[in-house]
Parts: sequence; C-alpha cells; structure tokens
Amino acid sequence: MNLTNPLILVVNDDGINASGINALINVAKELGEVVVVAPDKPQSGMGHAITLDSTLHVKEMNIEGVKAYSCSGTPVDCVKIAVNKILNRKPDLIISGIYYGSNSSINVIYSGTMSAALEGSLEGIPSIGFSLLNHSVDADFTAAKHYAKQLIIKILNGNYAKHLCLNVNIPNLSIDLIAGIKICRQARGNWEEEYDERTDPMGRKYYWLTGKFILEDIGKDTDEWALSNNYVSIVPIQPDVTNYSLINDIKDLENG
Amino acid sequence: MNLTNPLILVVNDDGINASGINALINVAKELGEVVVVAPDKPQSGMGHAITLDSTLHVKEMNIEGVKAYSCSGTPVDCVKIAVNKILNRKPDLIISGIYYGSNSSINVIYSGTMSAALEGSLEGIPSIGFSLLNHSVDADFTAAKHYAKQLIIKILNGNYAKHLCLNVNIPNLSIDLIAGIKICRQARGNWEEEYDERTDPMGRKYYWLTGKFILEDIGKDTDEWALSNNYVSIVPIQPDVTNYSLINDIKDLENG
Repeated sequence: MNLTNPLILVVNDDGINASGINALINVAKELGEVVVVAPDKPQSGMGHAITLDSTLHVKEMNIEGVKAYSCSGTPVDCVKIAVNKILNRKPDLIISGIYYGSNSSINVIYSGTMSAALEGSLEGIPSIGFSLLNHSVDADFTAAKHYAKQLIIKILNGNYAKHLCLNVNIPNLSIDLIAGIKICRQARGNWEEEYDERTDPMGRKYYWLTGKFILEDIGKDTDEWALSNNYVSIVPIQPDVTNYSLINDIKDLENG
Repeated sequence: MNLTNPLILVVNDDGINASGINALINVAKELGEVVVVAPDKPQSGMGHAITLDSTLHVKEMNIEGVKAYSCSGTPVDCVKIAVNKILNRKPDLIISGIYYGSNSSINVIYSGTMSAALEGSLEGIPSIGFSLLNHSVDADFTAAKHYAKQLIIKILNGNYAKHLCLNVNIPNLSIDLIAGIKICRQARGNWEEEYDERTDPMGRKYYWLTGKFILEDIGKDTDEWALSNNYVSIVPIQPDVTNYSLINDIKDLENG
C-alpha cells in the first residue's frame, strides 16, 4: 500500500450532493489523495443494481476542493467505472457513505452504500461503508467522522485482506455517549411491508412502500445488539450467499 | 401446504412480456393456481433494488390465461407488493424467471431474478429462481421447463424450510444431453469490466458497461463446474453476508 499518499475513492448512494459524502470527503482529504465518483441523483435502496440496458454518463466537477465525477448510474456502477475507467491507478481504499440511516441486519442487501463497498472489495480493494442512524437532512456527522477517521487510518496502515469489506453503522449519539466499537455478525431480521395506497388525479391507484423492521435475533454478537447498546457496529461482509447448512439436506433434489 | 390447489406466484426480471416468464407460467399452470406479478419493463441487473423515492403503479392483465399484474417497480418490489398487497393469501411457492443468461457464481448478487427469489424466501415462502444459459430471444426453453416442472413438484410436495431459496441454472442443451442435477456452492468468480466509450451527436462521451467473467475457483462442488459438465446447478442461497471467517481477525478494530 502506498502509505505516503494513498488514493482513496469516495462513493455513496445518497448522491453526489448529499451532506454525508461531504463529511466523508473531509475526513479522507486529511489522509490521502481523494477522488469522488458518486451518483448524480439519490440511489438509496438500489442494492447491487448495475446499468446494463442503458448508457452511462460522467461529469467532472469539484467538491470540497477535490476532483469529483457525478455518474448517471447506480452506486455499483460508480465503483466499476471509477476503478476501470476514471482512475489512473488502483485506489488503496474505497469508502462509501456516509448514509443517512441504518444498513444493519437485513438492510445490507438493499443498500446501495454497502453494495458499492462490496463491489470495491470484489475489485480487490479494501472497502468500508459508513451509515449513521439518523434519517434527518440535518444529521450531525461529528461522531461518524470521528470513527470513520479512526477506521480509515487503521485499514490504510494495517495488513488487511485486499477483499476486506466492512459494514460500519454508527449510533446517532454524541462521541462521549458512544460505548466503543463491536465486531459483529449480521442480525437476522426482516421488513414487514405496508403499502400506502393513494389515488392520482386521474383516478388511478398508486402505492408508496413503507414498513417496519422486525428483529428476529436475540444474539448479543449482532450489529443490532451493538447499536442498541450504543456501540458502533462493524460487520465484515462477503459476496458468497450459498446456504451451506442446506447443501446436504437437499441432496434428494439431485434425483430425477 | 395447500397441496390440492397450491398458489404459485410467478415473477421475473426480464419483464412481463419476456418469453421466459411465459415458459414458467405454462409449467406452473399445470401444478396449481398461478398469479403473475412482474416488472412492466426489463429489469435485468437490478440486484436487490427496491423503490423508495418514487411511487409504484400496478396494472391488471391476463397472460397465458392466468391473472397477471405488471408493476412499475423492480423484481423485489414485485414480490413485496404481490405478497403484501395484491394476493389475498400467502403463496405456497414463488418462482422467478426463466432468465435468459447465467445467474451462477457472482452473477447471483447482480441478478434481479435471484433477488426476487431471495425476497420471496425472506417473506417465508419457498422460492426458486430459474436461469437458462442462453442470451438469445429465440432461446429454447424445453429443457428448462422440464427441470422447472420436476423441481416445482418436489418442492410443493416435500417438507422443505419455508425460507428455502434455490438458484437453479440450466445449461443450454437439449434434455438428452443434460447430465442431471448437482447441488452446489456458489463458485468464486468476478467480472473484469471494460467500458465501451462512445461520443454522442453533441460531442459528449458516454459509456456502455461490458466485460468478461473470470472464474477464480477450481472446486468440483461449484455451480460453474456443474454447468461446464452439462449438469443443472442448484445453489441454496440465504441473505446473511457476514464474513464469519474474518470476525476474529479484525477484533483489533475494536480498540480505540
């Protein structure tokens, strides 16, 4: 790793104009050379979507004094095009966020923030996604920035796997109230959907997706437990979704 | 399970007008009551994306003699709105596809077809995603239908977990050339991206995402091995992406 001047790629899913990405840029600027490649519009909930059926457009700009590119694609597209087209050397670290809201438990699979980080790790670049448990546009990123800086320094200076991917969630508390950091597993949980049904001026029905999160896990080693107990949660993630525990149980399906 | 008249929800990511979904509807019609809820346009590569920032629209129609709904959302939206709004009872099985192309190895995380199936299993409904290794619109679904029928019957009549989710990939071969079925794990692999750069009539650059798949796994227990050896591959999948092997290795990150 080029520690004298590490290249840090900053991405997000809330879009290049979100305050959360500014917070992350300001942290990263102190620690290396920063390039931003982020969606030109909000892309929350985009999961691991990529753009296959249409074209991608990229526009160069400047944010917080660093080189930035807004991209018409998804968060994962941003990582792919940054690494394979825009940057002239491989980044030493990819950081994604800071997302306004939780990417703990099952939220990770819907998250553009975390899918961008996972894509980074698939490119062989250590990647960290940061989320702050506050949906407000006035969110205070002070504590999130503190922990982001601490973790970025450690990953840049440590000897971690090139496929390292961390899902970091930060409680919505001031630094003095945060209990510390816990390495966790992803809690089992799910969303119970509700659809808000409305009628448009032409008399046609339409729907807004809403719902509530149901925690299905009482483990004390989970991200949900850590966050409920005022810890920053870190879940290392990876892209193999095989259900290994079922492989033997379903061998009968091999028979005609 | 209501075996006398099981309710089968059919979804896909290629859109409600794709031939692949017709193939699956025709198989399912023989085995139970079928309802189709599918995207109103192609949504390949949409991963686990959901629609948070805009509204969802649903239109009732009829396909192959069964009740169908086209939905303005993603494949995952289709499953959520079907189960929570459209259907008046919980489906006994969700089937997704038949996708034109491979969802083996790392493709699973980009796949709308498989994300729809995974979402079904999160709702507590056994779900199967089917993909045929043929990108042509003239693809012959005969073998895929044969194996889909066999698996649907087994899952409907077996005693499988309600969270069962199967990623089924079918080689592009006639039935007599298919060697059988293998239960597999997801092969390690990745895409090496290339961007096709073009210039629009206004002189602005734009890009098409292309690339080639790189297999990084020599295991004989993988989906890639099975498909290369003319087997139908079945990988059971689940939504926990925790990298358990790293949890102890990164405990030092807990220290301030």
